[in-house]
Amino acid sequence: MSTRSISAASYAARIGRARTRLAGEDAAALLVGVGADLQWLTGYARFESERLTMLVLPAEGRVTMVVPRLERPGAAACTAAAAGAIELVSWEETDNPFELVAQLLREAKSRPEIQLGVLGGAWGTLGGLLLSDRLWASFVLRLQAVLPDAAFGLASTVLSGLREVKDAEEIELLRRAAAAADRVVEAIAGGRLVGRTEADISHEVQERLVAEGHDSAAFAIVASGPNSASPHHESGEREVCAGDPIVLDIGGQLEGYCSDTTRTLWVTGDDGGGPDDEYRRLYATLQDAQSRATAAVAPGVPCEQIDVAARSVIEAAGFGAAFTHRTGHGIGLDGHEEPYLVAGNKAPLKVGNTFSIEPGIYLEGRYGARIEDIVACGADGADVLNHVSRDLMVVRG
Amino acid sequence: MSTRSISAASYAARIGRARTRLAGEDAAALLVGVGADLQWLTGYARFESERLTMLVLPAEGRVTMVVPRLERPGAAACTAAAAGAIELVSWEETDNPFELVAQLLREAKSRPEIQLGVLGGAWGTLGGLLLSDRLWASFVLRLQAVLPDAAFGLASTVLSGLREVKDAEEIELLRRAAAAADRVVEAIAGGRLVGRTEADISHEVQERLVAEGHDSAAFAIVASGPNSASPHHESGEREVCAGDPIVLDIGGQLEGYCSDTTRTLWVTGDDGGGPDDEYRRLYATLQDAQSRATAAVAPGVPCEQIDVAARSVIEAAGFGAAFTHRTGHGIGLDGHEEPYLVAGNKAPLKVGNTFSIEPGIYLEGRYGARIEDIVACGADGADVLNHVSRDLMVVRG
Repeated sequence: MSTRSISAASYAARIGRARTRLAGEDAAALLVGVGADLQWLTGYARFESERLTMLVLPAEGRVTMVVPRLERPGAAACTAAAAGAIELVSWEETDNPFELVAQLLREAKSRPEIQLGVLGGAWGTLGGLLLSDRLWASFVLRLQAVLPDAAFGLASTVLSGLREVKDAEEIELLRRAAAAADRVVEAIAGGRLVGRTEADISHEVQERLVAEGHDSAAFAIVASGPNSASPHHESGEREVCAGDPIVLDIGGQLEGYCSDTTRTLWVTGDDGGGPDDEYRRLYATLQDAQSRATAAVAPGVPCEQIDVAARSVIEAAGFGAAFTHRTGHGIGLDGHEEPYLVAGNKAPLKVGNTFSIEPGIYLEGRYGARIEDIVACGADGADVLNHVSRDLMVVRG
Repeated sequence: MSTRSISAASYAARIGRARTRLAGEDAAALLVGVGADLQWLTGYARFESERLTMLVLPAEGRVTMVVPRLERPGAAACTAAAAGAIELVSWEETDNPFELVAQLLREAKSRPEIQLGVLGGAWGTLGGLLLSDRLWASFVLRLQAVLPDAAFGLASTVLSGLREVKDAEEIELLRRAAAAADRVVEAIAGGRLVGRTEADISHEVQERLVAEGHDSAAFAIVASGPNSASPHHESGEREVCAGDPIVLDIGGQLEGYCSDTTRTLWVTGDDGGGPDDEYRRLYATLQDAQSRATAAVAPGVPCEQIDVAARSVIEAAGFGAAFTHRTGHGIGLDGHEEPYLVAGNKAPLKVGNTFSIEPGIYLEGRYGARIEDIVACGADGADVLNHVSRDLMVVRG
């Protein structure tokens, strides 16, 4: 869903900042396909498709979006186009849109300020072209074929550092998405679970995400019993039993901005079969780890330190080998984006970074647990966007 | 959602057919990321992610899927892996999976039968590597960097011709998905519409698609009033009024297989304001065009002839300039795939092809209409998978 809450002035400013960085990279242009990069630069959201939509953003000169003719009305309505910050060029069903992109680049190249300013750089005769990171291979190879003189790089070189710092409008959208996901967690925890399949519960989650204001549901992991030990379990035909833990990891998009929240339930059934002591110890360890990682958030702290903060607690309790993934990922218009909270990432956290904090402990063949919040880095530390209880949710189900 | 209804023998046969074609293309290997190609070859479905999952399918030797460690349980459960048709190699969060892919290719290259059989071809010292068409640029450029001696092509060279011919199991899944979408169209046509926003109705469509058995809803275009003249309108805040046409174009996935159905409604409201004469003529033309295109389906007929069959009716009625897109697209594990029913596509229809037939007429600023069925090409002609009425649905709303 296109973003409606961000102003035209914001898009113009983002395009300007992208250009400044392009020049700093000595690159000639950004070539941005459908996806989060395009939405961030223009407000335009669109299904990915075999029909090329591409923003051609040279370091100087006009910014043009190449669009299939049948999608022109929607493209013209996006905030950046409606405000005149970008121009549209549409192509017919039997045209070659890759040639159209090449032509726009050649026109940009013929401008003297581009020839002097950018193309004397290290990127070859047409200059470096930075492709949006999720552009399809079918587009990449065709662009490489029609632009044999160009060197290709990734748009993230320029855009990641910009997109990872959210402004107040973006954090508000992420907060709304998180609140909607919280309400879904509460509804599922309060409903019937025993005897239902994971897939059935997953469907209910998806329906509720939309009913609570998401434009679409993206995923709904319902990992019950031993499946809770598989971090990215695909919800299937297993029926939930009394005495099961359930890892519930859900998310969707609201005006393009993502939610992603995990809570762990324990289903007692009518007989009151609660978690065993080992599971209680596992969960207490996890909750402590998640809490300490959140407390470690502050501007300037290296990303990997947040991972260390969680992992050291889990390792000290003897569960280190059972925490098989990084502690978190950035989130915004993409569900996973910079900054990644992972060993080796020494980049400092910045005010406006938004990311998940989601340690997990997984005992293969037995059970597992995970707790995940979305957090914004504020000047004074973590601004936690999720508020539903992080305690183990022991429910009758 | 992973496909459950397809047998292990089918996946083994598909891998074998892909290898035969690889040899025919003088290519060394397929490199297949998450998506429809991977699901078609293995039954494995997975969210796209920045963590590389890649099937390395050389022309000879073992077939290996590189997977992030935390997704190994799900990968191991896919039909092809569970049956031993592919092996798994997992990587840890701080490993470099691209180097792992390169190493697997070098191992395959060291096998004498590969050196002799494939690498003497035109593809350079490591041979041609065919990338799944929707692989992200971030993966493409990193593979190009770690494999500088290789020539890169697209996996569709090998896989399109295989995937576009559906077997009986696949057509049955598409039939189930189409029937579910039909039920949603009927429910929406029978419900309240006047005074509701397009976005609200779109949410209801998405909920119903899931409730009717889809694993997920993919899109739900609700284009009302003048918006019906925009073929890919994004459902928004416009409220439906008495006297509006609504183009309803909806779809989702069922075990990975897609539905995609369009019907056009006319909302009379309580006062009975029906369509004007011009709209009735437009719709009658459209219905005739859609029907004739369907009747033209038969093995051996060039794809573009189906487009001609629809377009000639619309042109004869004077609406030619208002039919701004091709007549249809293939459908299967991807919502849009081969064969495309578009001018210039002279490929003959084959038994087992499945595709949309969806002419539309759009009078900009006024109104539009579209009718879309999914059709399988059978030995005797079209097997239409959608059954909900194709008449203009005049409803009180």
